[in-house]
Amino acid sequence: MTTVTDLCFLTLHELADRIRARDVSALDATQAVLERIQRLNPRLNAYITVMEDEALAAARAADEEIAAGSYRGPLHGVPVAVKDLCATKGVRTTAGAKIMSDWVPDEDATVIRRLRDAGAVIVGKTNLHEFAFGATGINPHFGPAHNPWNEAYITGGSSSGSGAAVAAGLCYAALGSDTGGSIRIPAALCGIVGIKATHGRVSLKDVVPLSWSLDHVGPLTRNVRDCALVLEAISGYDPDDPESADEPVPAWASALQKTQATPGAGEGFVPRLGPRGVTRPQSDALKGLRIGVPAGVFDKTEADVETAVRKAIDALRRLGADVRDVDLPALSEYWGPAGAVLLAEAAAYHKEDIERRAEDLGEDVLQRLEAGLRISAVDYINAAQARDEIRRTCDEALFSDVDLLAMPTTVRSSVPIDAVDKDDPTLGLTRLTGQFNVTGQPAISVPCGLTANGLPVGLQLVGRRFDEATVFRAAYAFETEGGVPIGRPPID
Amino acid sequence: MTTVTDLCFLTLHELADRIRARDVSALDATQAVLERIQRLNPRLNAYITVMEDEALAAARAADEEIAAGSYRGPLHGVPVAVKDLCATKGVRTTAGAKIMSDWVPDEDATVIRRLRDAGAVIVGKTNLHEFAFGATGINPHFGPAHNPWNEAYITGGSSSGSGAAVAAGLCYAALGSDTGGSIRIPAALCGIVGIKATHGRVSLKDVVPLSWSLDHVGPLTRNVRDCALVLEAISGYDPDDPESADEPVPAWASALQKTQATPGAGEGFVPRLGPRGVTRPQSDALKGLRIGVPAGVFDKTEADVETAVRKAIDALRRLGADVRDVDLPALSEYWGPAGAVLLAEAAAYHKEDIERRAEDLGEDVLQRLEAGLRISAVDYINAAQARDEIRRTCDEALFSDVDLLAMPTTVRSSVPIDAVDKDDPTLGLTRLTGQFNVTGQPAISVPCGLTANGLPVGLQLVGRRFDEATVFRAAYAFETEGGVPIGRPPID
Repeated sequence: MTTVTDLCFLTLHELADRIRARDVSALDATQAVLERIQRLNPRLNAYITVMEDEALAAARAADEEIAAGSYRGPLHGVPVAVKDLCATKGVRTTAGAKIMSDWVPDEDATVIRRLRDAGAVIVGKTNLHEFAFGATGINPHFGPAHNPWNEAYITGGSSSGSGAAVAAGLCYAALGSDTGGSIRIPAALCGIVGIKATHGRVSLKDVVPLSWSLDHVGPLTRNVRDCALVLEAISGYDPDDPESADEPVPAWASALQKTQATPGAGEGFVPRLGPRGVTRPQSDALKGLRIGVPAGVFDKTEADVETAVRKAIDALRRLGADVRDVDLPALSEYWGPAGAVLLAEAAAYHKEDIERRAEDLGEDVLQRLEAGLRISAVDYINAAQARDEIRRTCDEALFSDVDLLAMPTTVRSSVPIDAVDKDDPTLGLTRLTGQFNVTGQPAISVPCGLTANGLPVGLQLVGRRFDEATVFRAAYAFETEGGVPIGRPPID
Repeated sequence: MTTVTDLCFLTLHELADRIRARDVSALDATQAVLERIQRLNPRLNAYITVMEDEALAAARAADEEIAAGSYRGPLHGVPVAVKDLCATKGVRTTAGAKIMSDWVPDEDATVIRRLRDAGAVIVGKTNLHEFAFGATGINPHFGPAHNPWNEAYITGGSSSGSGAAVAAGLCYAALGSDTGGSIRIPAALCGIVGIKATHGRVSLKDVVPLSWSLDHVGPLTRNVRDCALVLEAISGYDPDDPESADEPVPAWASALQKTQATPGAGEGFVPRLGPRGVTRPQSDALKGLRIGVPAGVFDKTEADVETAVRKAIDALRRLGADVRDVDLPALSEYWGPAGAVLLAEAAAYHKEDIERRAEDLGEDVLQRLEAGLRISAVDYINAAQARDEIRRTCDEALFSDVDLLAMPTTVRSSVPIDAVDKDDPTLGLTRLTGQFNVTGQPAISVPCGLTANGLPVGLQLVGRRFDEATVFRAAYAFETEGGVPIGRPPID
């Protein structure tokens, strides 16, 4: 018999197969997740709002539909969580802010509607850095989310609750948002997978903006295939979002299954003799793929992080990839325009909050918003034009000789919650992520090891604009054939 | 035998027919125009740079091509002028500024390339308000352009030289640019036709920007059909201009000929009895077209302007249009966002000029640029978002009950050059034009009469975004069947 914990730690696609086969009901899964939330959320503080009644009703409706033969697809009946930045009809949406803690939207955000259309069961709204404006995930109004790998440590932010909930088995997938790394950072620090797809892939409509031209909504999951499944469900053109791109959405997840090279199980797997004999099962899954490791990405990197990421890069090489060092002076410059754009757009959106309710804002967020008010139009315009120019030219500049970039997601692993006040880790956490919000290129974080302290390390893979397929392909090959699974976090 | 003056005052399409028939050569026309420029430009100051050698060479090349059977179309061999804001390869491009008076571009602007591809002969670069940043056309470095209807009067700006050159027969058409009315205002004040097509129709690439999100490049001509011909030649998607719209370009000019209802000459012309017998030739050319006259457009309007425009509107009604008063409170509000957007974008582009060479800028332009430096990013962002929202909703808001709007182009006729210092006419000149730079809707000015002082008055017709066809259709019917031609200006 499956325990509640085992059920909660099924992958999303395993659960989907069982729900489709009516071996597990949506209600079973939802009740298991709600039970686990009830038990562990007081320690992790992953959820701001648990939608118990709505979730149970949605699960029952899913079961009825499936029993009647109307199976919608792999999210049907699957319990998922959403960052509390996404408007949910009839359910309060706080954006992590005291100022917004009474807001009950009349409409769902487009991503929420798409999840519901896919049959997903939304179990709750996850904790976050206030207004998503910070990378630690420490919320002054709702408290910090705690890292399932060590509850005294931060999850990373801003999608802190989504990271904790997915890693701890309090849902099968969660939506996060990422303006400078806010999906990838908690994914890395919590030992899960998170993708920020190409800017414009996923609608931002009725997701409280931080900086709309840098914002991305995307999934956090426990494996790459689940990540592709959720991204497929929420992607696509939305005429109501001016940032939305009218691009077709590929079937990323099924493409992964087709190219899967299960060790020993068929095509694509070629056992190979290393210098000292057979080293480990290998395949040619990434043969022909050129992966660049930009110069400087290991500067100021924690030793254990560097070790884990270098091993991961070696694994990519063993899988057939042509891995090379690349010198991309532009990479560090690509973060430049983000400052003025992010501060000014955030200040523009929150102008009334700053003017009328400054005392109700967290100190760090208020400081950032006030800095945004001081940006001049000319500086903003110059930064926005630089951003647009970067977006036009970044594929050519970064991918003239390679197909993917590989690097650490964050240059350091998690830090103790009580150390954040003394030594703000924001710069270290966002050093390698923010550039790709400016370029708008797809970037994924996949777990690639643990530090000596048992804290997860993330490998970041970045692709050309609208080429999520290659990002998923490499991440999937690494996860299924190249990496050493880090297992479940110790919390239980 | 045709006199030089008569040759210079042929319409563009008449000249084109003669060139195609090899009845007149491109060289004949170019020499006639250059001779007229030589004689009259010292009085009108329409051209900053006359491209005599280049024009003669281009004319000879056109004649050779045509003689060899390679006729390119109605601009082939036709002498045209371009506002000195458009980059011309190898020919200095001043933007009307002392600061830029040494700039010799390496590349043609896209619109220049398109004119050359169509075979046009560019005879020179026309005068303008410095950086196109003003509506009077009085240039502190190159002197004011003079109005051919009264040389003591302004032409209106900023495309002042283009207005004077076309009206005085110093070219067959000219390019202007329009950020708040700068094509339509000189068209109205100089008694010619000028259109600002939908924002994005005509490439802005390598046209010195004033405010790229409000800027429009377009033609000034002596009649509507010529205007359609030139607009066709310069329109179309340009991947090098981020503001460019990927929309097909209709054959506007030939559509006009097909629907032409020549009085007494066939289909479409229905002689009709008025209450007191036959009043004048009329047709049903505009039957079914709903034209709205917005409330308030005659407020603060000079009496002679109101009389001429009301007569023009009556003529539209006689041509079958369903003319009605419409109440559009939004119309006045639509100018609101322009202020912060225009000032900030102009200041962003000219930041170095202000910081390094303020003493070389005209006083009025320097004041406006300095005001732009003081705009905050938040105010700019709010204005830019309001602009975008207006563009998304303006067709529905303004054209729910009508197909076109009709109103004066300017609420006043021209003013003496020496009166401008005492009483800046800018507000009156732009009061009814700037809104349509914010909406991005197509707007034409056609001559509709003269004041008692013999100064031209313009009728402005505005259409839905990307519906230049209806704007041209109504303007053409008015011009050919509804209006009383105002004739040539007295200068000679």
